[in-house]
Amino acid sequence: MTHFISHITTRDARFALKPGEGVDAVHRDPQYAYAVTRLHASNGMTGTGFVLTLGPGNNLVNQAIEMLAASLVGRDIEELMASFGAVQRSLADHPQLRWLGPHKGVVHLALASITNACFDLWAKVRGVPLWRLLLDLDTAALVALLDLSYLEDVLTQEAAARLIEQHRDTRSSREFILASGYPGYDTSIGWFGYSDERLVANAKDAISRGFLALKLKVGSDDPARDVRRAHLLRQAVDSNVRLMIDVNQQWTVPQAIMNCREFADAGLYWVEEPTHPDDVLGHAAIAQAILPLRVATGEHVANRVAFKNYIQTGAVHFVQVDCTRVAGISEFLTVALLAKQAKLPVVPHVGDMGQVHQHLMLFLHIALENELTFLEHIPHLREFFVHPADVRDGIYATPQHPGASADLLE
Amino acid sequence: MTHFISHITTRDARFALKPGEGVDAVHRDPQYAYAVTRLHASNGMTGTGFVLTLGPGNNLVNQAIEMLAASLVGRDIEELMASFGAVQRSLADHPQLRWLGPHKGVVHLALASITNACFDLWAKVRGVPLWRLLLDLDTAALVALLDLSYLEDVLTQEAAARLIEQHRDTRSSREFILASGYPGYDTSIGWFGYSDERLVANAKDAISRGFLALKLKVGSDDPARDVRRAHLLRQAVDSNVRLMIDVNQQWTVPQAIMNCREFADAGLYWVEEPTHPDDVLGHAAIAQAILPLRVATGEHVANRVAFKNYIQTGAVHFVQVDCTRVAGISEFLTVALLAKQAKLPVVPHVGDMGQVHQHLMLFLHIALENELTFLEHIPHLREFFVHPADVRDGIYATPQHPGASADLLE
Repeated sequence: MTHFISHITTRDARFALKPGEGVDAVHRDPQYAYAVTRLHASNGMTGTGFVLTLGPGNNLVNQAIEMLAASLVGRDIEELMASFGAVQRSLADHPQLRWLGPHKGVVHLALASITNACFDLWAKVRGVPLWRLLLDLDTAALVALLDLSYLEDVLTQEAAARLIEQHRDTRSSREFILASGYPGYDTSIGWFGYSDERLVANAKDAISRGFLALKLKVGSDDPARDVRRAHLLRQAVDSNVRLMIDVNQQWTVPQAIMNCREFADAGLYWVEEPTHPDDVLGHAAIAQAILPLRVATGEHVANRVAFKNYIQTGAVHFVQVDCTRVAGISEFLTVALLAKQAKLPVVPHVGDMGQVHQHLMLFLHIALENELTFLEHIPHLREFFVHPADVRDGIYATPQHPGASADLLE
Repeated sequence: MTHFISHITTRDARFALKPGEGVDAVHRDPQYAYAVTRLHASNGMTGTGFVLTLGPGNNLVNQAIEMLAASLVGRDIEELMASFGAVQRSLADHPQLRWLGPHKGVVHLALASITNACFDLWAKVRGVPLWRLLLDLDTAALVALLDLSYLEDVLTQEAAARLIEQHRDTRSSREFILASGYPGYDTSIGWFGYSDERLVANAKDAISRGFLALKLKVGSDDPARDVRRAHLLRQAVDSNVRLMIDVNQQWTVPQAIMNCREFADAGLYWVEEPTHPDDVLGHAAIAQAILPLRVATGEHVANRVAFKNYIQTGAVHFVQVDCTRVAGISEFLTVALLAKQAKLPVVPHVGDMGQVHQHLMLFLHIALENELTFLEHIPHLREFFVHPADVRDGIYATPQHPGASADLLE
């Protein structure tokens, strides 16, 4: 049975945050907004994909979606997905829009939104949740989803297939995760502007709700404030709770090296985005200098080529690739293979609030033996989703509805 | 006397190219378009800045210009330029639009267009050509133009000032260039699709018009075609003529290393953009493997941070920073300082067809002792400029009109 894409619409969805929500050292006045792609299929189904922006400019992404996606009208979704790697490369290399990146910024965000809508429609047409769809694909079909161009020096198609095959026999030993659910961690307790009192109260509340990992936003003009608050958190929770700090690019390389040392006694699990996301060598210098503290980054790393360089230089320990920043689920999977090859865990940043990534983390753990860590949880938009992630006792319950959990209420 | 910016307008200027013009291995169907910023001053003067795109999507840049530049209305141009580094940083870190980069893609192109318009207006208000304006600034005023954030590990404000001061005493020995003009090289002879016959005829014509350097577009599906055409060119011109090849990102890293060796006998001056512009380590591997052939790149390197990494890894020999790709003249100058520190020549890519860069190359040679090479020349848009670059006998004549030569005919 064929399911043609009959037409494509976009939606500029903007959401009000409560005061203080989403605020970090660099993004001090965020809105949350989604540039939404909707692929309308001939059978009446709709595939939904989106990327996160902070409000203004969301409309630019939507316009880029309309220009990029036009060529998909009339295509059968199964036929598209049978060689999606090639489809994605041709969209990424649009003869004129490519100049506006290439493979980064507004046009790449647009490609991510389109890609995510393709995967959602595909899973709906097959009547299964995205994680199930991906688990059921054979190795050749998985590799055909990926654009591996510009990775030839490290990851050929054959090497990608071998990586997937290597972990296939042991999949069943990891399928318990479908029943247990995937652990979450709570980012929303520690926004930058929250008072010390609120921070501690939020942390205790998160622990009481079952979370075992928490994140604190740092990057104050006064570094002593950051260190003090990290220790406040450390004292407020049990020693088995993992604490992370997130700098959101606020530090210079020398500052990052100096400041991280001040946190030596705070028992941190990682430091996130210590400096500018284009500074691969800066991150590598930081990563070397601050061990045993480890570096997490990726929410602003635009594509697989940049991730390749991060991994080649030892500049990242936790790969925070986000399918609403790279070119969607397809490039997310590509980066996950690069990470696997280097034995690094993927722990996504969740521009999607975890909706799509909950599927991807189940797949990565079972299919690639991605280290079982935890998936970021940000609850601020849950009321706007048709199927909001079901996070209870600090655990993402495995979604059972068809698709990628990306549909928004009207 | 004060000159306030009373209002800002944009123009979506698109130009038809003749068949074959502008075509390379990756951009096979280009238009040329400019996203133009016009700053209207209270005295009736207009500052013009622009960036290049390939047509579709040009309007996205214009919309980003309108969002980003709004905060400049009501500001005095002299006051803005007295601390433009800080102004530019605050625009680059727009609290919401920053997410769409950061510092790359559509929003960064918009910042470039705005920045270039500020410099043009400033030079017009002072009644001097841009090169003269820059040469007349003292060291502190020059450094105040620059956003050096995220370069603290390699280039502090003090180090930037020292670099400028070091070459001040010997400026007069290089001012001959103002009388002689700056040499050009011709890119338009060797577009990708031109036949062998046309290529040779174009080359001979360019030599007869005084050019001493020519560029050939390569990256064919059949690498033997590229090698054959390079030798054709080599045989068609004198041995003192410099030949460069431009891959426009078409090769993988292994292909680049293999293919470059095939050109060993063609006497090439550089190979340009051998692979993906985000692949710093890939370029470094290529640069090491293909010596003595040297690597030129930069037209798609978005900002100073990425250039820092290129320079730190020895991945580039000729720094092709383009003030219509990085955040305008200001970030161009910053990258030139990074290059100077590493003793690398700046040889810009000219998204502006050389209009603005002719000023910048005069300044860089005199003020920073930038190696005297040649400035790319692409003649296809000259009929659309108010003051088209005056290129005779292969030499850019020094512009004498006030401003940055960026004004377009209506």
